[in-house]
Amino acid sequence: MTLTPLNPAMAATDPPPVMEARRWIAGLTFPADRPLINVSQAAPVDLPPLALRQALAEAAVNDPNAHLYGPVLGLQGLREEIAAQWSASYGGVIRPEEVAITQGCNQAFTAVMSTLAGAGDEVILPTPWYFNHKMWLDMQGVRSVPLATGADLLPDPVRAAALITDRTRAIVLVSPNNPGGVEYPAELVAAFRDLARARGLALILDETYRDFDARTGRPHELFADPDWADCFIQLYSFSKAYRLTGHRVGAIVASTARLAEVEKFLDTVAICPSQLGQIAALWGMRNLAQWVAGERAEILARRAAMVEGFGALEGWKLLGCGAYFAYVAHPFAQGSEAVCKAAVTKAATLMLPGTMFQPESHDEGQRQIRIAFANVDQAGIATLFDRLAGFRP
Amino acid sequence: MTLTPLNPAMAATDPPPVMEARRWIAGLTFPADRPLINVSQAAPVDLPPLALRQALAEAAVNDPNAHLYGPVLGLQGLREEIAAQWSASYGGVIRPEEVAITQGCNQAFTAVMSTLAGAGDEVILPTPWYFNHKMWLDMQGVRSVPLATGADLLPDPVRAAALITDRTRAIVLVSPNNPGGVEYPAELVAAFRDLARARGLALILDETYRDFDARTGRPHELFADPDWADCFIQLYSFSKAYRLTGHRVGAIVASTARLAEVEKFLDTVAICPSQLGQIAALWGMRNLAQWVAGERAEILARRAAMVEGFGALEGWKLLGCGAYFAYVAHPFAQGSEAVCKAAVTKAATLMLPGTMFQPESHDEGQRQIRIAFANVDQAGIATLFDRLAGFRP
Repeated sequence: MTLTPLNPAMAATDPPPVMEARRWIAGLTFPADRPLINVSQAAPVDLPPLALRQALAEAAVNDPNAHLYGPVLGLQGLREEIAAQWSASYGGVIRPEEVAITQGCNQAFTAVMSTLAGAGDEVILPTPWYFNHKMWLDMQGVRSVPLATGADLLPDPVRAAALITDRTRAIVLVSPNNPGGVEYPAELVAAFRDLARARGLALILDETYRDFDARTGRPHELFADPDWADCFIQLYSFSKAYRLTGHRVGAIVASTARLAEVEKFLDTVAICPSQLGQIAALWGMRNLAQWVAGERAEILARRAAMVEGFGALEGWKLLGCGAYFAYVAHPFAQGSEAVCKAAVTKAATLMLPGTMFQPESHDEGQRQIRIAFANVDQAGIATLFDRLAGFRP
Repeated sequence: MTLTPLNPAMAATDPPPVMEARRWIAGLTFPADRPLINVSQAAPVDLPPLALRQALAEAAVNDPNAHLYGPVLGLQGLREEIAAQWSASYGGVIRPEEVAITQGCNQAFTAVMSTLAGAGDEVILPTPWYFNHKMWLDMQGVRSVPLATGADLLPDPVRAAALITDRTRAIVLVSPNNPGGVEYPAELVAAFRDLARARGLALILDETYRDFDARTGRPHELFADPDWADCFIQLYSFSKAYRLTGHRVGAIVASTARLAEVEKFLDTVAICPSQLGQIAALWGMRNLAQWVAGERAEILARRAAMVEGFGALEGWKLLGCGAYFAYVAHPFAQGSEAVCKAAVTKAATLMLPGTMFQPESHDEGQRQIRIAFANVDQAGIATLFDRLAGFRP
C-alpha cells in the first residue's frame, strides 16, 4: 500500500537504528550455553533499588498527585532539587525556574530544538553523532551540518566556526559522548561556548552520561559564568543514574525565556511529564547519591576491562571509551553493517555499525562500531572478547 | 532579555491557554465558604480506583518491565487488548499492528500529524477547535484552515470540500467534541471519511471522550469498512476513562505503514511510553468496564444538570453539551475574555473564553465560553448556576 499523504521530510528520515538492529536478531535463537551478548542499546537491564521501587508503590497507592495532571514544566520539588544540587556541583547559580522536566532526554532535545530552529535552518553536530538528534532535525527539515572529529573524536571549535552560516542556529555537544565514549575537556566545552556566544548561537550540551564521567569534580565551568543562560542549554537524563529508562524522565536547564517557549512545545506534545517517573527521580536525588557512586565505580571498572581487552585484541582499535560506550575500528575488509550482521550469527553479539552514527559521505563509518558495554558485567566482557578474538565476518 | 536564536514559528505560537488561565487565579485567595469553582480544564480530580492503584504498586515492586525500556510503539499486550476490544465494539477488524501507544493523546496527534504535513501544508480544523491541535500546527509552520460550524456546532462536509487546496493534507474531527460538547452523527463522520478518501486526504478522528458518549452502541461505522486504514486514523486517550491523566497514555489506530512513520517520531520524542502508565491502562481495560459504565452514568447525570441549568438561566444560551463540556453563549456586552476574568473575582468561577478556541477572525469567540463541568459534582453544578445567575461582569 502506498502511504498518502506522507510528509516528505518524514519519508526521508531514516528508521530508528535500534529497531533496525532488533530485526537482525528477530526469529533467531541462541543456545543456552552461548546466549546473545546485546551491546546495541545504552540501557540498564537491572532494576532500580528495591527502596526506590517501594517508594513508587507507596506513591501509587497514597499520593493523589501521582495520578493527576501536573505542571507542564514539571514538579516544583524536582525543579528545586535539581537547581540546588546543580548549583552546588557546578559552582554556579541555577534557579528552579531555569529547570524544566521532560519525558526523557530525547524529548528535552526535541523541545529545545523546536524553540531554536525551523525548516531550512542548520545545526552543527560533531560526528559520529547521536542518531536521534539527526532524526529529529531531518523530520523537521533542519539541516544537520556534520562537524568531522579527528582521531581523538574531539570536535574542533575552529573547524566548527568555518561551518557557521546565516542559517546556523545551534551547536550540539554530547559529553561524555554517545557514541564515541570520550569526555570533552572543560576548556573545549568553554571554547564552544565562546564560539556560540560570539556568533549568536545556542550551545546545547547533552550530559545524559554525566554520572559516569571518569573525572572527579565538575566536568565544565559553564554554569560558573553568571551569564550562562544567554547561550547555554544543558540536557540531562534520569534514566541511567537511577535505572529509570521505562519511566522516561529528563531535564532541561536553560533561561526562563527559553523555557517559556519550551512550555508551548511540552504542553502540546506531553501536557506534563508522567508523575510517577518524576516522583522516582526526586526520590533518587534525595536518597541514592551513595548508590549512584557505587554504580559509577562498577561502570568505570567495566570501562577499564574494555580498554584492556581491546589493547590485547589483534587488529581492532579503540577510538574512544567512556560512559556506556566503546567506539572502535574493526580490522575487516567488509563494511561495518556487514560486520555487525555477521557478528550476530557468528559471534552471538549484537553491536551497532558506525554507519548509523555517520553521514553517508563519511567513509569512516564503514570502519567503526559502537559497543554499549554498560549492561554487561565483567564476566560478560571477558566472554565478549573471547568471541571477538575468534570472529571473522 | 531578548531570546536568540528563536524559531519564528514557535514565537508566533500562542502560549498554552490553560496556563494563561491559571495566571488569572495566581495569588488570589477564595473564602472557605465560597471556594473557586474551576471548570477550566478537562481533568478528573478524583483518583483512579484503589484496586488499580494497588495493581500499579504491585508492578512497581515486582514487574521488571515496569522500569525498563519497552517497544517504541507500546506494550504488545496493550496493543492486542485494544485491537480485540475495538474490533468487537466497532464491528470491524483492527489488528494489534494497527495500534500504537503514545504518551497521551496530545502526543498521538503530534506523531500522526508529523507523518502527514510539513511547513507550508494545510490542515482543516472545524471551529471552535482544540487549542493544542492549533498550537502544534502553528509551531510546525502548517496552516490551520478553520472550518466554521453552524448553530449546531456540526461541521459541514460540503463547506470542508470548498476549503481543500493542493496543500491540504488532513481533516481533523473531535467527537464527542472538545470544546463544543457535541457528538457527531455517524453519517456525518462517514461523509467526512468519503470526502477524505475521494480527495486523497487523511481523516483524523480524536475520540478522547468516547467513553462518555450519551449514545448507546458504536459512535460510527468507519472501522466496519475493510479498507478503513487507507485514509482513517483514530486517536484515543486513557486519561479520562480510568483517571490516568498524570500517567499520560494515549493510542493511535492507523495503517501499519502509517505507524512505521509514527515509530520514527516516537522513537525520537519519547523512545517508549512510560511503562507504568501502560500497565495501568491495560489493567483498566481488563478490569474496569463496569466501573467506567458507572462513571459514564455520573457524567451523563451532570450533563443533564447542565442542560437543565442553562435552560433556566436568563440570557445565556447552551450551544453544545456533552462529554466533559458545555459550550455556551454569554449575554454580556463585554468580550469573553473580559467576562471570564470578571467571573474569577465576582463569581469565584474559572471558565475559558471562546477566543481561546476560535481564530481571531471569528467574532463569535467573543460571545462564547467553555465550561469543563465533568469534575464538578451535582451539588457543585447547582452552586455554579447560583453564582452565574447573580453574575454581571
